[in-house]
Amino acid sequence: MAARLSLKQDYEGLLDKYDTWLFDCDGVLWEGDRLVDGAIEVLDLLRSRNKSVMFVTNNATKSRKSYKTKFDKLGVQAHVDEIYGSAFASAVYISSVVKLPKDKRVYVIGMTGIEEELREEGISYLGGTDPADNTLEPFTLANWTPDPAVGAVLCGLDTSINYTKLSKAFQYLLRDPACLFLATNEDSTYPSAEGLLPGAGSIGAPLRFALGRDPISIGKPAGTMLECIKAKHDFDPKRTIMIGDRLNTDIQFGKNGSLATLLVLTGITKESDITGPNASPTVPDYVTKSIGDLRVLIS
Amino acid sequence: MAARLSLKQDYEGLLDKYDTWLFDCDGVLWEGDRLVDGAIEVLDLLRSRNKSVMFVTNNATKSRKSYKTKFDKLGVQAHVDEIYGSAFASAVYISSVVKLPKDKRVYVIGMTGIEEELREEGISYLGGTDPADNTLEPFTLANWTPDPAVGAVLCGLDTSINYTKLSKAFQYLLRDPACLFLATNEDSTYPSAEGLLPGAGSIGAPLRFALGRDPISIGKPAGTMLECIKAKHDFDPKRTIMIGDRLNTDIQFGKNGSLATLLVLTGITKESDITGPNASPTVPDYVTKSIGDLRVLIS
Repeated sequence: MAARLSLKQDYEGLLDKYDTWLFDCDGVLWEGDRLVDGAIEVLDLLRSRNKSVMFVTNNATKSRKSYKTKFDKLGVQAHVDEIYGSAFASAVYISSVVKLPKDKRVYVIGMTGIEEELREEGISYLGGTDPADNTLEPFTLANWTPDPAVGAVLCGLDTSINYTKLSKAFQYLLRDPACLFLATNEDSTYPSAEGLLPGAGSIGAPLRFALGRDPISIGKPAGTMLECIKAKHDFDPKRTIMIGDRLNTDIQFGKNGSLATLLVLTGITKESDITGPNASPTVPDYVTKSIGDLRVLIS
Repeated sequence: MAARLSLKQDYEGLLDKYDTWLFDCDGVLWEGDRLVDGAIEVLDLLRSRNKSVMFVTNNATKSRKSYKTKFDKLGVQAHVDEIYGSAFASAVYISSVVKLPKDKRVYVIGMTGIEEELREEGISYLGGTDPADNTLEPFTLANWTPDPAVGAVLCGLDTSINYTKLSKAFQYLLRDPACLFLATNEDSTYPSAEGLLPGAGSIGAPLRFALGRDPISIGKPAGTMLECIKAKHDFDPKRTIMIGDRLNTDIQFGKNGSLATLLVLTGITKESDITGPNASPTVPDYVTKSIGDLRVLIS
């Protein structure tokens, strides 16, 4: 059963126990473009106590560099090296884990974040934001020449999703069973400031349904993201805590990596999801309403 | 085990046994805009033997009226009343089965076929081909006023699928658990003349994934389509045969309705899908390579 935190001594206990604090962003630090009350003060507090702070996001619409500008805009202190996104982790996975040959290319369903991270890793790609693929004109195979160099399809949140991109990705995967099917993450929804919208997992759902085949998912809760962080930062999992708003991504990610987990209720998960007869089987170590609750430690 | 038909007497036996012949179209009579060899002669033969011929298609991109023009273009004799499409069946389902109140509206993901059939049934709708919803501009809830009259979302194949339509449909279903979630059909793929493309089921997959909820599907293999046909034509299921190229839609549809079933191999299903260790559990009564095989009866 999760420990409910509410007293000053509860939060003080957390600071004593954990040196490395991994934060999900959407739904924890902000919702859309609105900061969660107290988020900045709490991050400053952690840094002032010499805690190592990192940001682990499934958001693949932005590269780490452009995600950094979001931190800047909202006045949240962060270094690019502290930011781990699923677009970055996907690019690292393609270049370093599966070691896609340099003459192969990746067909992208996704936005600039994926493209920037692929470029940084020296991976050739097509699709994505290419104006030729961003059209609502009818798609027909008769007018299309597939690129024989495509060796992987990478699918992330794409708010310009269309039938052309879905059809091309589907055909690449159908024609060549060896073509890798990758997803930046499988979040079913995306928490915008005004409410939920379909997430990366939903954008890839047509391919799963049409192919009867699941992608390899890179983002939380998969372990690939944690491997990426471990490769860059030395930390002790026993003294590390993952803070998130989603049980099936953030909290499961922490559990998969043997980290402690703190659930906040400022995002996707509601009180009813963790109590009562329909509660999720994924139980965080700790629960608090908002990351802002840690402000009680600031005297 | 399915009976393999190859001899003249096999086909003659079918004509003796069945008075009503229900045909799937894509993959049986044609593929895209290419007629299957012999399809016209065989249909003419059936009519000359006083067989009742009907066309039962999951294709919801066209209304029965505009589907008729496809028959005309390809030189296939057909009357509008012989054509049953999943768009038509969906409209009938909404008006006659669930009896959606007249002040309610349907949000459409789909093409003109759905819109025409809804209009014919006097059902008010929005979305669909409305230029305002057919855009690749970013969608945000901040700029959107949901229509409180929406009481159903109907999703079919939409080759202009985009994030705006997916987001609106998702929000209507999320906001109001009483809002009906309907799919014209759940075909995972669509057989175009040049190859497979994502089908209606794939277009609706983002909503299923985002909502964690399945739609009520109207087209084959669901019984709704057969109810529609029964309401208009008097026929004896024992003397009726369903001819199709898909095991999980056409053949299952026939089985669900206690009709005889004939599988042809000119569409989705390949020999390997019905033989060997990975054969489907859905077994047709009869198998023949092509509907054109019945030409042996024409002397």
